[in-house]
Order: sequence, then structure tokens, then C-alpha cells
Amino acid sequence: MQILKDRIQTQGKIMPGSILNVGAFLNQQVDVDLYNEIGKEFARRFSGAPVSRILTIEASGIGIACVTAQYFHVPVVFARKFRAKNLDINLYSAEVTSYTHGVDYTITVPKAYLHPEDSVLLIDDFLANGCALEGLIALTKTAGARLAGAGVVIEKGFQQGGQRIREAGIRLESLAVIRSMSPEKGIIFE
Amino acid sequence: MQILKDRIQTQGKIMPGSILNVGAFLNQQVDVDLYNEIGKEFARRFSGAPVSRILTIEASGIGIACVTAQYFHVPVVFARKFRAKNLDINLYSAEVTSYTHGVDYTITVPKAYLHPEDSVLLIDDFLANGCALEGLIALTKTAGARLAGAGVVIEKGFQQGGQRIREAGIRLESLAVIRSMSPEKGIIFE
Repeated sequence: MQILKDRIQTQGKIMPGSILNVGAFLNQQVDVDLYNEIGKEFARRFSGAPVSRILTIEASGIGIACVTAQYFHVPVVFARKFRAKNLDINLYSAEVTSYTHGVDYTITVPKAYLHPEDSVLLIDDFLANGCALEGLIALTKTAGARLAGAGVVIEKGFQQGGQRIREAGIRLESLAVIRSMSPEKGIIFE
Repeated sequence: MQILKDRIQTQGKIMPGSILNVGAFLNQQVDVDLYNEIGKEFARRFSGAPVSRILTIEASGIGIACVTAQYFHVPVVFARKFRAKNLDINLYSAEVTSYTHGVDYTITVPKAYLHPEDSVLLIDDFLANGCALEGLIALTKTAGARLAGAGVVIEKGFQQGGQRIREAGIRLESLAVIRSMSPEKGIIFE
């Protein structure tokens, strides 16, 4: 998606630890017109897939998922993150390890908001090690729902998440895949 | 806003501790068509006010703010919540006490995303004791920005936040104001 790649090139900041800060337009500060283009592109790519629900994770996935949902005409559900295990019997839960932040956490979604008859599209802003997305995949499977696929705005192609998820047979659409990034050579897309 | 009040009546659940659970359509599970109606209504109510930026707070304010921003054509910024004080000099911060959850926390927003020349519209899903909204007001003032007003989806009129904010001279628009709620008498709007 060229306009997205252009924004990443001009406004993305490479931080220590292979972190790409796109807070200026993609997450903490949001360019809603860009969100709309992202939503349209996800709708185009998944136009043949039945989608009855979009599942994302707090916090920065929520806005993208809500704007995207306008093009699918389906509800959005977001999973919450907890530092402790949450054993509420009314929740589906999955364990996630965050390599970026060096912590384990639990993600949950109320059972009332994810049904066995659902066909679920996962949406998130970033895919790196894939742990958050794999947590959402686990929640979907636990609910007995069908997985329509996963749509990610930025994939760090030099980390292992994308490969692992594709090898698991899951349809993954990333709108910008970064092959490499460094302060010296900048950001190179696949 | 009648369609909102109807949804609260039919799908809202009164929980112990004067908590109203509207997760089925307003926050954890999102009816995006309703979000669009909410966004249009905020745009109608604030049509005379100059708005250059929408400020909200993670997590459940983000989706409403992003969909609403489509009708204002301005960027959205969300404040992050931390349990500890965050002393980063690149952040504006404010202290918030949550009566609902019984904790104090710090909210922050990068200085790069809130400017003295901004006219800021605050958007959030709930107003009860008003502490989260007052935190956003404090962030706006610290940035030296103008406050265009605050738009809230549901105000608990029987708690003190709304009155305090209006008495401070801030324009506050609440789309549904609850006068009282109890398991016996249900939800009564103003």
C-alpha cells in the first residue's frame, strides 16, 4: 500500500531495539483519512472472505478496527490485556508473551461477544514476533469460531511472526512489510 | 439522542456499584453504525466550535473518537494510562483518581501531539465522577491549547462530574444523561 509506505518513510522513527515509532500518524496520533484508506484496502483484500466479526486488541488496534469495520458492516470486539491471569468463567482467555515489553500477560474477551458461528477477521497495527496475533488466534479457536484471516497494517518481515502465522495456514494480509530497518540505511520494504 | 437511549434501555446492564455495562454495543463490542450516529451528533452539536484536534483516553474512548473524527476532519490523539508516575520530559501528564476502580493513575500524551495553537475537543464514552475528563482538561491546559468542549456518550447525571465541569465554564455535551438507575426501577434519563 504505497501511501502507507510513504508515510512510514517520511514520519516513522527508528528507535533502539528495532522499534518503529509511527505514533505520529498510526496509533497515538491518528490520521483518520489514512485509517479510511487502510480500512478500504482491508475490505478489498478480504472481499471474498466471509467476515461476521472483527477482533482486535487494546489499545492501538481499536481505532483501526472500528474504521475498518465500516467497510465490512460487522461489529468490532477488542480483547483486553491483563498482567495477571484472569479466571472469570465468562471470558475466553489466552496467554501472550511480549518480547517488546518483556512481560507476559493475559488477553480476554467476554464469551458473549465471540460465537462458534462467527467468521472472524483479526486486525492489528503491528506484527513482529506475532505473539499478540497468536493470542487472538487462540481466543478465536477457543470460541470455536472460524478464522477468516488476519489483517495487519505494518509487518516487520525480519522478525518471525508473519512466517509462523502463514505456515500455520492462516491468511495474513500485511499492508506494508518491512524487510530491514536501521538508522544508517533507513527503512526498506519488501 | 433517542436511538442511543433506546439501546441503553434494551442492552445496558445495571451492575453492582452503580456501574452500567454497555459493553455489548458501546465499548468492548462495538456497533460501528451506532458510532457513526454518535459521531454525526457530536459534529452537529459542536458545528459552531473551531476544532483542530480530538483528544481521548485509552482504551474505550479510542474507537468513538476515531469514528467521530471523520466528521470533523481532524487528527485524534489518545492519552495513555500508567499506574506509576511517568516523568518523561517529552510528555504532558496529569494525575487521575478512578473511583470506579479505586486506583490513582497518570495519563500522558506526547508534547509533539498537542500544541498551544490547537482547539481541542475531548471525547469519551462515560462521564461519572469526571476524573478522567478532568485529566484530559488538565493535559489540554498544560499544553496551552484552547478547549473547544467535551463530548460524552453517557453521563451519569446522579454523580458529580458533569456539574463540576459545567460549573468550570466548559461546554459539555452528553448524548444520554442518566438521572437514576437501579435494578428495581431501571434506567431513567433526564
